[in-house]
Amino acid sequence: MLYEISEKTMKLESQGKKIIKLNIGDPDQPTPNEIIEAAFEAMKQGKTKYSFSTGEPRLREELASIHGVSAENVVITPGSKWAIFALMYLMFKDGGNVIIPSPHWTSYELIAKSLGVEVRFLRTEIDANWEIDVEKLEELIDQKTRLLILTNPNNPTSKIINEKILEEIVQVANDKKITILSDEVYSDLSFVKTKSILDFDDEHILINSFSKTFSMTGWRVGYVIVKKELADKLMKLHQITFTNIPVFIQQAAIKALELRNEIANRMRENYRRRADLANKILSKTKLKFTKPDAPFYFFPKYDNLDSEKFALDLLDKGVAIIPGTAFGQYRDHFRIALTIPDKEIEPGLAKICEALK
Amino acid sequence: MLYEISEKTMKLESQGKKIIKLNIGDPDQPTPNEIIEAAFEAMKQGKTKYSFSTGEPRLREELASIHGVSAENVVITPGSKWAIFALMYLMFKDGGNVIIPSPHWTSYELIAKSLGVEVRFLRTEIDANWEIDVEKLEELIDQKTRLLILTNPNNPTSKIINEKILEEIVQVANDKKITILSDEVYSDLSFVKTKSILDFDDEHILINSFSKTFSMTGWRVGYVIVKKELADKLMKLHQITFTNIPVFIQQAAIKALELRNEIANRMRENYRRRADLANKILSKTKLKFTKPDAPFYFFPKYDNLDSEKFALDLLDKGVAIIPGTAFGQYRDHFRIALTIPDKEIEPGLAKICEALK
Repeated sequence: MLYEISEKTMKLESQGKKIIKLNIGDPDQPTPNEIIEAAFEAMKQGKTKYSFSTGEPRLREELASIHGVSAENVVITPGSKWAIFALMYLMFKDGGNVIIPSPHWTSYELIAKSLGVEVRFLRTEIDANWEIDVEKLEELIDQKTRLLILTNPNNPTSKIINEKILEEIVQVANDKKITILSDEVYSDLSFVKTKSILDFDDEHILINSFSKTFSMTGWRVGYVIVKKELADKLMKLHQITFTNIPVFIQQAAIKALELRNEIANRMRENYRRRADLANKILSKTKLKFTKPDAPFYFFPKYDNLDSEKFALDLLDKGVAIIPGTAFGQYRDHFRIALTIPDKEIEPGLAKICEALK
Repeated sequence: MLYEISEKTMKLESQGKKIIKLNIGDPDQPTPNEIIEAAFEAMKQGKTKYSFSTGEPRLREELASIHGVSAENVVITPGSKWAIFALMYLMFKDGGNVIIPSPHWTSYELIAKSLGVEVRFLRTEIDANWEIDVEKLEELIDQKTRLLILTNPNNPTSKIINEKILEEIVQVANDKKITILSDEVYSDLSFVKTKSILDFDDEHILINSFSKTFSMTGWRVGYVIVKKELADKLMKLHQITFTNIPVFIQQAAIKALELRNEIANRMRENYRRRADLANKILSKTKLKFTKPDAPFYFFPKYDNLDSEKFALDLLDKGVAIIPGTAFGQYRDHFRIALTIPDKEIEPGLAKICEALK
């Protein structure tokens, strides 16, 4: 129901209705002006032509240097979601299954479904602090398992994977010869230090995006770090699909990386303040939740809630949230995204609390 | 070899080598300044967020009005190539075959191959003025045929499909219940009036792009006109792949449509002048070719030429062209794209003529 709520929200807004949008991980902060100016400069310089399907060499080099890999392992993508679709499109040509810890981002499941890939969910629980049970993971793996998708920090729980557990997971994946795709789009804004999959083993895949760190959601620019062989296959898929990311957008991304620390620090503090505020407000309710390690999301539980009905009713009252069912079998949970101006957070959360009475 | 030549050309250029690029349909003309300014204005207004996966309502409405359809039938895509990939991805889930008149744009074949779709080529000949033989078409169709792809005007021949023949083709498709996908990306710049597939029957699919008409190749914005049911499926595929085209790019596209006649007329005259020049030069050689109905391409034949070897040798001499084999079984043909500044055309063609001696 994630996309249904989002499309319905946009429609209501286009009809002039005021909605407090706690539904989507789309930062209210504008894209920093320096980044916009860089795009404009590039357009004026004629960076409006066909270009490399793997991305601009300079952008790939900058990202390679950040992640300690070679530029040939970096492929620029139109958002990190594209990277997931493309990698699964390429990796599951001969069938297989993917393991996804749950709660999980809706798109993983929809992509797998569209590609006819079997999904095996590995349920995690709020009472276990959303930690992955490595034994259960091992039990789920069979001969046909090709991929394990990790989201670190997680969406919707905003928890990071404990370093010791992550090490065990990597060990299991290596033993069983399955690839880990680690979606780390929230890592640059994480409130606590988050280990990257590349810190353990460069046999696996990292995906990341400019969307969250730089408030560039609508620009559609992300990247993937993979082995050369898969990078070449991605290039060929890009050549027959979207061709290239607009070069002026990649020039804007290069500017974003120049300002990375400054922007990420500012954004992180902003989201931390909001998370603290929400934590304070929600602690006074009957909602059960874990304190977020990373920005944007709370994923509270309310016993016996039908979150789909709740979300639709709440939308009529002018507040958009996403029901827990969008992230797996979590009907009594819902997701709140703190991606709205500070002054709307209190009234938004107040309306949620009111509706729960 | 189309993409290999292009990537190799870009690499040589990035090493500082001067290449006369007659290889790619990427106009040398800059994107008109008003379009760039419109994108910049939109960015500054915060049009940098997630948005509709079918495209901005206003852009869809403008295109619907141009083509005499409803806005719900228009879906904005990251280039027209994406539209072909996406439609084939959706239409061939249960197998089937596609018929493609040849010579054909390389991407159709590569997309079909990637998706595991059987391709049946319908060969056309320079001696028959590249006309489609409707009887042969009928013979190729069987129970598993889902789609016929037309390129009108054609790439690489720059011929339009004779109106009478197009009518017969539509009749055959309707009788046999197969869908026509009509790729009309060169139609706005055609030197002669070109009938659209929608002039015959709105059961079929039109794809078009802003790339050629407005010199916006690198912006990646095109569109498809389809029945509502398929439009909805495209929306769902977009939601799990690239999410949306950047809204500022769509605002630029809206500005382009405002200036459509003025820009298209200027561009068309420019390409007509170049085509006349090339026609004059090439007529003095042993090359056999048809006079183009539309901009950009010549697809001459030189008896017993090995165009792959010829193209690679020519690239070493500083001129990029595409061998005929990139467009089907046309080894003794090659494609020239007149998308370079006027002053480079004469020396470029001179080097080709020299190499043929």
